[in-house]
Amino acid sequence: MTTALIALDWGTSRLRAYRVDSRGAIEARRTLDCGISCLPAGGFATALADACADWLAAAPHAPLIASGMVGSRQGWLEAPYVQCPATLDDLAAGLTEVELTEVACAAGRVLYIVAGVSMDGGRMPDVMRGEETQVIGAASAMESVCMESACVVLPGTHSKWVDYAHGSISSFATHMTGEVFALLRGHSILSVLMEGDGYDAQAFGDGVMAGQEAGCGGGLLHRLFGVRTLTLFGRLAPHAGASYLSGLLIGAEIAAAVEHGYGAGAIVLLGSEDLIERYRVAFALLRMQAVAGPDDAAPAGLTRIAQRAGLISIDRPL
Amino acid sequence: MTTALIALDWGTSRLRAYRVDSRGAIEARRTLDCGISCLPAGGFATALADACADWLAAAPHAPLIASGMVGSRQGWLEAPYVQCPATLDDLAAGLTEVELTEVACAAGRVLYIVAGVSMDGGRMPDVMRGEETQVIGAASAMESVCMESACVVLPGTHSKWVDYAHGSISSFATHMTGEVFALLRGHSILSVLMEGDGYDAQAFGDGVMAGQEAGCGGGLLHRLFGVRTLTLFGRLAPHAGASYLSGLLIGAEIAAAVEHGYGAGAIVLLGSEDLIERYRVAFALLRMQAVAGPDDAAPAGLTRIAQRAGLISIDRPL
Repeated sequence: MTTALIALDWGTSRLRAYRVDSRGAIEARRTLDCGISCLPAGGFATALADACADWLAAAPHAPLIASGMVGSRQGWLEAPYVQCPATLDDLAAGLTEVELTEVACAAGRVLYIVAGVSMDGGRMPDVMRGEETQVIGAASAMESVCMESACVVLPGTHSKWVDYAHGSISSFATHMTGEVFALLRGHSILSVLMEGDGYDAQAFGDGVMAGQEAGCGGGLLHRLFGVRTLTLFGRLAPHAGASYLSGLLIGAEIAAAVEHGYGAGAIVLLGSEDLIERYRVAFALLRMQAVAGPDDAAPAGLTRIAQRAGLISIDRPL
Repeated sequence: MTTALIALDWGTSRLRAYRVDSRGAIEARRTLDCGISCLPAGGFATALADACADWLAAAPHAPLIASGMVGSRQGWLEAPYVQCPATLDDLAAGLTEVELTEVACAAGRVLYIVAGVSMDGGRMPDVMRGEETQVIGAASAMESVCMESACVVLPGTHSKWVDYAHGSISSFATHMTGEVFALLRGHSILSVLMEGDGYDAQAFGDGVMAGQEAGCGGGLLHRLFGVRTLTLFGRLAPHAGASYLSGLLIGAEIAAAVEHGYGAGAIVLLGSEDLIERYRVAFALLRMQAVAGPDDAAPAGLTRIAQRAGLISIDRPL
């Protein structure tokens, strides 16, 4: 099978490279700790070579496409944002080209970078880079299931809630849940009260319910102190503290997102297995249903965008 | 004038010592970086001697009283909590005695530690140590003004909102505002976007209004991301970023506290001048009125509690 596309999911911490064949299937994959925050100045070309010099040599005509923070101001080249509502056509038309003249293993070739998506709801602008591609990929893979209209939730350091309907990303919002968890878990007065990071289902569930109360009607800054006082009064075991805090923040995130109109219909979760499981539990406790989306949403999205941009033709419709 | 009392406001970071005369006035004061988190194991006796060995020698009959984290589990001796509603009588009756047998400069004397106050609203317990004494002191100093019934707000690392009415602390709530600010200012992805910590009134006010929206109806984890996106889109100058973040968190704290029934009547602010000024501005923006409480609320409260406990008699009523 011919290699049709070299697809890169290039974020802050990691570079995930995929070799895609002419039917749109993944032939090979590699993950490198070469996220844009880990690279020295000018380190993009070296990282690209490390990731796929052999693929490039073996497939001299395969186009290269990338999504994620590689297109940010701190990335290889800043790719302008496409505004919401954003369709597959908008993303295909919004590719930014990096001439790879200085990359020995790819001289004369071009790297296409997918635009980020921005939104300005008036209250504050919001942005994403990479998640739009995952949403497109999930929509492509799940078309027959429920993606006619769905809210795609991508939990993580900066969780994204993305409303997708009729082929368009209509709105989205970022919640700094994972980052705030890491700060409080690692660096706050609460951190010494928590022992380990094992999962405790009861404490997580209690946290989710407390977080929902905090999310509806404020009080998150107050309820966080509960990690301390519940431990002090013996109502939260130290080994369960991190689970409670995790639930508290995830519950607050979900409550706030719902308050802002997200998640009324089908909910699709994309992300790491562990996080998806936690969010599934949280949604269930809050009497909402969420299904796990497909694996490999990013390469599926990159392939779909490359196809729509006319960079490749795929033997079977994706 | 005879020294009637040696009063210690002994918190996490600092030890503030006061020599109080027989009219209840402060004769002398010292601040040492000997908070309980700064001391080696068994370092309390040494810190006490550093703070006031000469005062102890000069006034061999003056009782010693302390409030704050010195009475916590990590303090000199754990002083049990008095439950809400807590009156001056409850605090006077709830003093815990530390025999100073091992303290050369105070052999045979006793250190009285003021109880912390706890509250269990059902949702989560809450605790304070030291603030109850400041509230008693402020009430004592402001009796004629507005303290018949007031909400005392003590901004800081862990802000306290304390409802005080008819001589009793009726309820209170802690908000981790200052600590979350420090974590986000110092260690988050937002920190690199902020330049300096100068005060920008416009950005602070914008933050307060955004925080109020976040506090009412959740969304704090979302609105925090606004520090990034507003900067990215040139709507928030880097030098004003920290002011916006400060306003956002303070606004969220106030909105949540109000939502939980605090601050409907008179509001009295106790704390550092800078923080009090920020909260005054925030309250004004939210169409609430707050007045600054008296300086030296802690020694005034310690004196009042010592007096009510019969440890001292004061020549004029406090």
